[in-house]
Amino acid sequence: MTGTLYGVGVGPGDPELLTLKAVRILQSVPVVAYPATPQGSAQARAIAAQWLNGQREIPIVMPCMLDRGPVNQGYDEAAILIASELAAGHDVAVLCEGDPLFYGSFSYLLQRLGERFPCVVIPGINSVSAAAAAAALPLITGEQRLTVIPATAGAELIRQTLLDSDSVAILKPGRHRPRLLELLRETGRIGDARYIEQASRPEQRIVRRCEELPETPGPYFALFLVVRSG
Amino acid sequence: MTGTLYGVGVGPGDPELLTLKAVRILQSVPVVAYPATPQGSAQARAIAAQWLNGQREIPIVMPCMLDRGPVNQGYDEAAILIASELAAGHDVAVLCEGDPLFYGSFSYLLQRLGERFPCVVIPGINSVSAAAAAAALPLITGEQRLTVIPATAGAELIRQTLLDSDSVAILKPGRHRPRLLELLRETGRIGDARYIEQASRPEQRIVRRCEELPETPGPYFALFLVVRSG
Repeated sequence: MTGTLYGVGVGPGDPELLTLKAVRILQSVPVVAYPATPQGSAQARAIAAQWLNGQREIPIVMPCMLDRGPVNQGYDEAAILIASELAAGHDVAVLCEGDPLFYGSFSYLLQRLGERFPCVVIPGINSVSAAAAAAALPLITGEQRLTVIPATAGAELIRQTLLDSDSVAILKPGRHRPRLLELLRETGRIGDARYIEQASRPEQRIVRRCEELPETPGPYFALFLVVRSG
Repeated sequence: MTGTLYGVGVGPGDPELLTLKAVRILQSVPVVAYPATPQGSAQARAIAAQWLNGQREIPIVMPCMLDRGPVNQGYDEAAILIASELAAGHDVAVLCEGDPLFYGSFSYLLQRLGERFPCVVIPGINSVSAAAAAAALPLITGEQRLTVIPATAGAELIRQTLLDSDSVAILKPGRHRPRLLELLRETGRIGDARYIEQASRPEQRIVRRCEELPETPGPYFALFLVVRSG
């Protein structure tokens, strides 16, 4: 009997936004894994910390977000450790910020382990829902479309999305913030845009008039929500 | 002191997919409201039932999903009852299936009450996350785009979305299912599509080869997830 690989969404940051199911699984497994920096910082683990109870821990060390080579090596190494636990019959929960399958690193573990072991995904609150809740802003109603796009997508793709879609969430603006502000102005959508940093966390910040945002890089844990007014 | 209006996402159907925060709010408020049919069926209330404890209840009666007139009347009537509780200083939690701001009826209450009373939204797991989890299918990775569109949008809009977006979620196929299957074939995306009914509920059903789906209407609580393979 092999163990089960759980992908557990721990939500956007507020520890109260874990689901009851996530809490039950975290408390029942003998092994947890989570993305971590080489310095030992681990956001998903921090969000779920109060529910851990001395389990074995496997950090998935990701040296650099921008260079795929070392990232792949981090997944390869973690997959070997996780596979040996699963093969020994131990369930493993991989903690994932937000939702495991929504731009989450869990996809890369699923590629490496999904065909060899039973796999169960516990969905989590993603950053788009958290930001909309923070701003009390209806994301989509009726027959509208919502498109989610990362800030790293090309300018042409973001421009077209802003022109085509009623509602747009642009994720992880970071150093792209000045370029995104320019695209929002260019497409006439800056009046529809809100900017939300660190939704659901104590550092949460909501900017309702994006014209007032400085043309400087901003943090990674942020997003623009663009919703047609009226 | 007026009460606070809470929009509480109760998730896609599995009662274990409520968040800890949703449970805390539901147990602390003296009044709950929820959408209901004239026959008394109320999905959101059923999902959260184990956490209710004899609170006053305000059903938001929605006679017919297709005719806006009576629906608006249902919101108008409920908004009056909710406003009188809030004005008397009582907090009111509106139970919302999925996420309150993701095609949710909470938006219509927010329009009517949001400027007069303090309002707090507790995000919930939406149907797209629940369906992806059910199918263990990565929705989006890297620089991909995800577009969410309801089946009631026009054929041209759905066709364009299928051609443009890496990942597409088409919500609430219902009687539009035959037309959607045709659009999926026409755009060459039927091989990328999965069909998921009642994600996270006991009746959950996953169809991984949409070529095998009959060209007949299907249930409302279902969706197509279209994700580029490879």
